[in-house]
Amino acid sequence: MEYNLLCCNVGRRGRLMIDFKQYLTGKGNLIATDNWSVAPALFLADKQYIVPKITSPNYIDLVVDICQKERIKAISTFIDPEIEVLARNRELFFNMGILPLCPSATSAHLCFDKYEMFKYLTTRGIRTVHTYRNLESFYNGFSNGDISFPVFVKPVSGSGSVGAQKVNNKEELEVLFREKKFDYIIQELMTGGDCDADVYVDCISHKPVAAFSKKKIETRIGGASKTISFKDPKLFSFIEEVCDVLELNGPCDMDFFYKDGQYYLSEINPRFGGAYLHAYGAGVNFLKMVIKNIDGKENTSEIGNYEEGILMLMYDDVVIVREKDLLKDYHD
Amino acid sequence: MEYNLLCCNVGRRGRLMIDFKQYLTGKGNLIATDNWSVAPALFLADKQYIVPKITSPNYIDLVVDICQKERIKAISTFIDPEIEVLARNRELFFNMGILPLCPSATSAHLCFDKYEMFKYLTTRGIRTVHTYRNLESFYNGFSNGDISFPVFVKPVSGSGSVGAQKVNNKEELEVLFREKKFDYIIQELMTGGDCDADVYVDCISHKPVAAFSKKKIETRIGGASKTISFKDPKLFSFIEEVCDVLELNGPCDMDFFYKDGQYYLSEINPRFGGAYLHAYGAGVNFLKMVIKNIDGKENTSEIGNYEEGILMLMYDDVVIVREKDLLKDYHD
Repeated sequence: MEYNLLCCNVGRRGRLMIDFKQYLTGKGNLIATDNWSVAPALFLADKQYIVPKITSPNYIDLVVDICQKERIKAISTFIDPEIEVLARNRELFFNMGILPLCPSATSAHLCFDKYEMFKYLTTRGIRTVHTYRNLESFYNGFSNGDISFPVFVKPVSGSGSVGAQKVNNKEELEVLFREKKFDYIIQELMTGGDCDADVYVDCISHKPVAAFSKKKIETRIGGASKTISFKDPKLFSFIEEVCDVLELNGPCDMDFFYKDGQYYLSEINPRFGGAYLHAYGAGVNFLKMVIKNIDGKENTSEIGNYEEGILMLMYDDVVIVREKDLLKDYHD
Repeated sequence: MEYNLLCCNVGRRGRLMIDFKQYLTGKGNLIATDNWSVAPALFLADKQYIVPKITSPNYIDLVVDICQKERIKAISTFIDPEIEVLARNRELFFNMGILPLCPSATSAHLCFDKYEMFKYLTTRGIRTVHTYRNLESFYNGFSNGDISFPVFVKPVSGSGSVGAQKVNNKEELEVLFREKKFDYIIQELMTGGDCDADVYVDCISHKPVAAFSKKKIETRIGGASKTISFKDPKLFSFIEEVCDVLELNGPCDMDFFYKDGQYYLSEINPRFGGAYLHAYGAGVNFLKMVIKNIDGKENTSEIGNYEEGILMLMYDDVVIVREKDLLKDYHD
């Protein structure tokens, strides 16, 4: 059996491609797509396709064509807005014998809409960050003493840290809501204690079977650039609680805060996170688990099976390619 | 002879280390320093040292110790503020049989102080960007019609694009000069047409012997993330003109603007630039020229000896290392 993996919209995730390709050698092919012919990660896969944007009406048909042509056995995306697109087509992929590495449509929507997630987690008793959908409900909470300035404001369905900021007072808050650059939510400001975990959720049992947690040492624009691994059984139990109330499948990047001896869930990006490179470098191999799931077998838990004090230090690498060798971009 | 190269303050320049190490295999050792034990590029050299900050009174003595111990044949720095430190010690290095890859002290100072450089280039008839040192001289120029808004404001001795910005009117300009976050200069705003070149200036003849020019396709915070090579004999002649009025040595990163059929010099960073990776990937090898200079031989010009239409596409890579294997940081 050839374990051919399709990674959609690979963008700048070059090292992830290198790691995947290395592991898949002799096992299957690594196929990558992007909508821009100069996405560096494209050139580090075994084969690459240029696709239209995910909002294009024929997007999913073209992805299906690639899956058939390349005899794909599992599909994954590296960009947040595509997760729901894949999740809505889970049945289609299953019928083609392809394992979709994405949550159920319902859980995918919760991961994408941070306010819906807050409401849902609260009803299910999962600790999360206090969140308001609009100014009115925030002022209600404010006058009840449930929240105070400074607060944290971010887009309800943002990606990365785009548009996310600390807000010190009512005036600043109202300016943001008047400017409406994003559809914002208002959150309690959690200071310090942030950490995150790369979690592999088994696609059959929907239980977490691997979790690699790390703290940030240095952050640059766009994310953590230096991280260090740690282990805490309390965090691992909390991850199991979180997974119990959702239907996740495959790799997830989960963000947490630690406050007064307890972990709080900040958000879940149900895809390979930018810092999964750290987990892989420390010997935590999600692709091994993907392959077991492709074979229809459940993975057993290896949570915490790594060393503490392993550092990931990020730097810039490059792909060199000739313009005349580029694939053609789509023009709708 | 062992062509051992010392690279000071290597920081995040990991791919540069990998390229250097590859080329030096069998020829010499690559030694790296930094003042922070978690600088990723440290781990990609043959041997690494932690040094104090360049402002430390015993900094140069410690560098000299490393040079002796490692039988260094050429020394280079990757950070702008250290260039003058090396330049002031050129004689010291020469006396130890070490080639310092940095300008003369006078030229190093001109490269660091953008206003002094403007004045100097103007007296020598080299086209550059119109620059004012303070508000008073700017308003003089403004009332004479020599300059108009928008203008470009940047620190007189800044690095990268830190503190550099477009300023639209008098009010914005006065706020910046009142806040005094940096010691600013005011420049004519050059729109579009920016490009840059990696130039190797022979350490014996002080003439440019290699030049690789490229344009930006995509810029992210911190610099160009996608570039494409081009060739223009007019730019190459201009680079020769520029080098004629300075005493440069070794690798230089030169920034230009193109306007009305002419190139203008924006600035020179007399060190390996972040995008030298592009030049190397396209076959332009400065280390080969360094080695010839170490041997006391002049390089002959290979300017323009590369292909047009070669792309450099940047992505994040990582170094994985154990905390317990880190070297100790200096504490003054």
